[in-house]
Amino acid sequence: MGISVDTFFLKPDAQGTLQAQIQQMIAEGILSGRFHVGEKLPSSRKLATHLGISRITVTLAYTELLANDYLTSRGRSGYYVSDNAPVPPSYTPLQRAEETVDWNRAIARRFTGGDTLHKPSNWRDYRYPFIYGQADPTLFDHANWRLCAVRALGQKDFASLTADYVDQDDPLLIEFIARHTLPRRGITAKPEEILITLGAQNALWLAARVLLNRRRKAAIEDPCYYALRELLLQARCQVAPLRVDVDGLPPDAIPHDTDVIFTTPSHQSPTTATMPLNRRHDLLQRAREIDAMIVEDDYEFEMAFLAAPSPALKSLDRDGRVIYVGSFSKSLFPGLRLGYMVGSEAFIREARALRSLVLRHPPGHIQRTAAYFLSLGHYDAQIRRVSAALLERRKAIESAITDHGLTIAGRGAYGGSSLWMRAPKAVDTKVLAEKLRAQSVHIEPGEPFFSGPEKPKNYFRLGYSSIPVNRIEPGIEILAQSINRQ
Amino acid sequence: MGISVDTFFLKPDAQGTLQAQIQQMIAEGILSGRFHVGEKLPSSRKLATHLGISRITVTLAYTELLANDYLTSRGRSGYYVSDNAPVPPSYTPLQRAEETVDWNRAIARRFTGGDTLHKPSNWRDYRYPFIYGQADPTLFDHANWRLCAVRALGQKDFASLTADYVDQDDPLLIEFIARHTLPRRGITAKPEEILITLGAQNALWLAARVLLNRRRKAAIEDPCYYALRELLLQARCQVAPLRVDVDGLPPDAIPHDTDVIFTTPSHQSPTTATMPLNRRHDLLQRAREIDAMIVEDDYEFEMAFLAAPSPALKSLDRDGRVIYVGSFSKSLFPGLRLGYMVGSEAFIREARALRSLVLRHPPGHIQRTAAYFLSLGHYDAQIRRVSAALLERRKAIESAITDHGLTIAGRGAYGGSSLWMRAPKAVDTKVLAEKLRAQSVHIEPGEPFFSGPEKPKNYFRLGYSSIPVNRIEPGIEILAQSINRQ
Repeated sequence: MGISVDTFFLKPDAQGTLQAQIQQMIAEGILSGRFHVGEKLPSSRKLATHLGISRITVTLAYTELLANDYLTSRGRSGYYVSDNAPVPPSYTPLQRAEETVDWNRAIARRFTGGDTLHKPSNWRDYRYPFIYGQADPTLFDHANWRLCAVRALGQKDFASLTADYVDQDDPLLIEFIARHTLPRRGITAKPEEILITLGAQNALWLAARVLLNRRRKAAIEDPCYYALRELLLQARCQVAPLRVDVDGLPPDAIPHDTDVIFTTPSHQSPTTATMPLNRRHDLLQRAREIDAMIVEDDYEFEMAFLAAPSPALKSLDRDGRVIYVGSFSKSLFPGLRLGYMVGSEAFIREARALRSLVLRHPPGHIQRTAAYFLSLGHYDAQIRRVSAALLERRKAIESAITDHGLTIAGRGAYGGSSLWMRAPKAVDTKVLAEKLRAQSVHIEPGEPFFSGPEKPKNYFRLGYSSIPVNRIEPGIEILAQSINRQ
Repeated sequence: MGISVDTFFLKPDAQGTLQAQIQQMIAEGILSGRFHVGEKLPSSRKLATHLGISRITVTLAYTELLANDYLTSRGRSGYYVSDNAPVPPSYTPLQRAEETVDWNRAIARRFTGGDTLHKPSNWRDYRYPFIYGQADPTLFDHANWRLCAVRALGQKDFASLTADYVDQDDPLLIEFIARHTLPRRGITAKPEEILITLGAQNALWLAARVLLNRRRKAAIEDPCYYALRELLLQARCQVAPLRVDVDGLPPDAIPHDTDVIFTTPSHQSPTTATMPLNRRHDLLQRAREIDAMIVEDDYEFEMAFLAAPSPALKSLDRDGRVIYVGSFSKSLFPGLRLGYMVGSEAFIREARALRSLVLRHPPGHIQRTAAYFLSLGHYDAQIRRVSAALLERRKAIESAITDHGLTIAGRGAYGGSSLWMRAPKAVDTKVLAEKLRAQSVHIEPGEPFFSGPEKPKNYFRLGYSSIPVNRIEPGIEILAQSINRQ
């Protein structure tokens, strides 16, 4: 690709002759790595016209750069960055003058510094990646996804996909979710009650912003998905963390002045506890008594390979107080960034207006591709394939854990893609995880999931969605040795 | 596609025999439009196992539905929704019981009800769509976009695209923007100073949330992009609207207690005014004096077909106080939802953390597709093609406007895709736009762009990015007749 003439400017305050300025511009482009070896420079005529200077000035500059081996000439076809030019391996702009802005003053609100799991971006390089929430490329129906994407890029769809939807969603995707996805959870919803979001995270954030403010209180599970706690802290509402038990969130513990209850009844995150049906009824009853809304994060209901999942809390909701959050991150892949929320029209209307303010709408092409993939039945086949693999891995990990004498603190009754583990009291799993890195084992320390000052340090999560089945036992062996050595 | 067995549930509180319940489930599925004609039902064995009931019960229910012509049987291949079944044209779930939640109380913050332009979603059906900000499919290099998308879906890229990036972006796209896009605006930036956003709207929102709070003040242009004013109102900061003149925002008018200045120097939105170089220097000087940050929305610099665009404000910024917002909505298409922001590392770090909280990251596939399209040179070709078409349309619209005696209030000196128009004082352009709809002419009333109680009603915007050149003159003729008739 040629270097665009539009990237050349004469600086009003520049020193030296015009020819020298041009030479410097090009040398800087090369030395900073902005221009690559072999890239073609604009013709002298073009550059001269663009800068409003005489062509001879440009030609002289080029000749000089040729002599210095910055450029090379290929006869009539023009000037190129020379093979011998000192191009650095990556683009590193030349140092600018020191900035004078005081960012400590300029930044009104800080968003960094919260609890986050530091997931290694190179987790694929680990031999034993017990990572959670990443896709396994070997299980994904890549060929059909590609076909759907190409179909969604077809001329027929193109007009509707390129347009600014303003605040709307792809009607095909909405219809599929209403007719096929939600009925699996026992949920009935009209299109006006469904909003597509940029993943479940985006749905939780929208719900928090619409339903909470400084005077309101949110009840959350403890431990819970750390990013939920983080976004509630940012919403500056009051937060009541409630310790979960083996059946998930205990309804009795919910404070009477709670406005919104955030819960993961089907697979408590991260303990994997499944809330029994009678507790679901009790939870709805408690919410009715104190007039609280419920945000139900049903983030991996599809991964139910041990038993059929129980119906969603939302399906039992007669009052309209449950807001249901679903996601395609686990069943398709997380990089897709597609989720959805279901709730009463009055709520969805506000969430839609807020989404519009923040990002308008998730990209049309992504929505349409997912709609095709779902409606052609590939999604069901995908879930069957992933479930079969997860079942095999689940058996392998449970048996390895038993063999090596480790302790499972929570395992989803229906399936899921992770186990919640407890190490002996004395073990700090952050330190453990750090040590294991040297042996190419990745585990997730449990501490960031907990609220409050007295966070247990001896829990951890083992994901099995991205580790090949034959790596599981050897990985658990290393883990067990490391724990026993503590 | 078959109807999934997972969508069948026995309700714990249901009345009647099991057979009757199954018949009712299926009849409801048909009558609500959830099941379509020709869709296959689960086999009686499968459904019986799933529900934990005897197979004969399911078979009897199916036989009964067959007799009533809800279902049809195709020999051994099973039961299907009958061609004669009373399936409604769209999915309309049966009415549920009245919801009891008081949403007026439950909603903590309202986001609906702001100033918005009501863009018709069927604008393509208009014969004369002087609409702004939509793509013209006839100008888009659809074939190459598709090739890039397919390449980005290739096995090689798949792993990196399906992953949860957590808070990162596609390094290929970032590198391209740094090396090729920003230099066109005279801007030098390192990867850590660039954040990909879900369109320019998302960038503006992130900047507002990081830099403003209730005690801080934002200066905005008046008139301005209505969604910017809306998101500042939601951020609850103080807002000072400053009337723009023919050169855009006047620096002298900026209050001394301003914290953030939002400006569109290259094509003032919506008046299209271009800020001259000396005013750009004055604006930077004023910002330095009062220690204010500047958010520069450079939303359509590529559409410069009349003259080369002047360098961005950011390129003149020595202090690091300018945050630059760019977008691919105008040069590629708005449904892509890709934009970016450039600023000091300290700022980008906070914006990244906030983005992560709200939506994590823009989808990987979209980022990679754009990176390929840009780096293979299709983007430059695309801009040349769009610019040539816009130039032709711009000439046609200006000459039609002159011929029909209408008044241009603002025209971008470099190009752009719209004109800012002034009708006679007595004309309310909202009423005018409404009347024109009957003649298949779409124009945008100017009132929502203005701040404060005394909004001029006689301005309007004429977009020419989506109207074929031969429709321009006839459309302007109808418009002129309608204005003269007022």
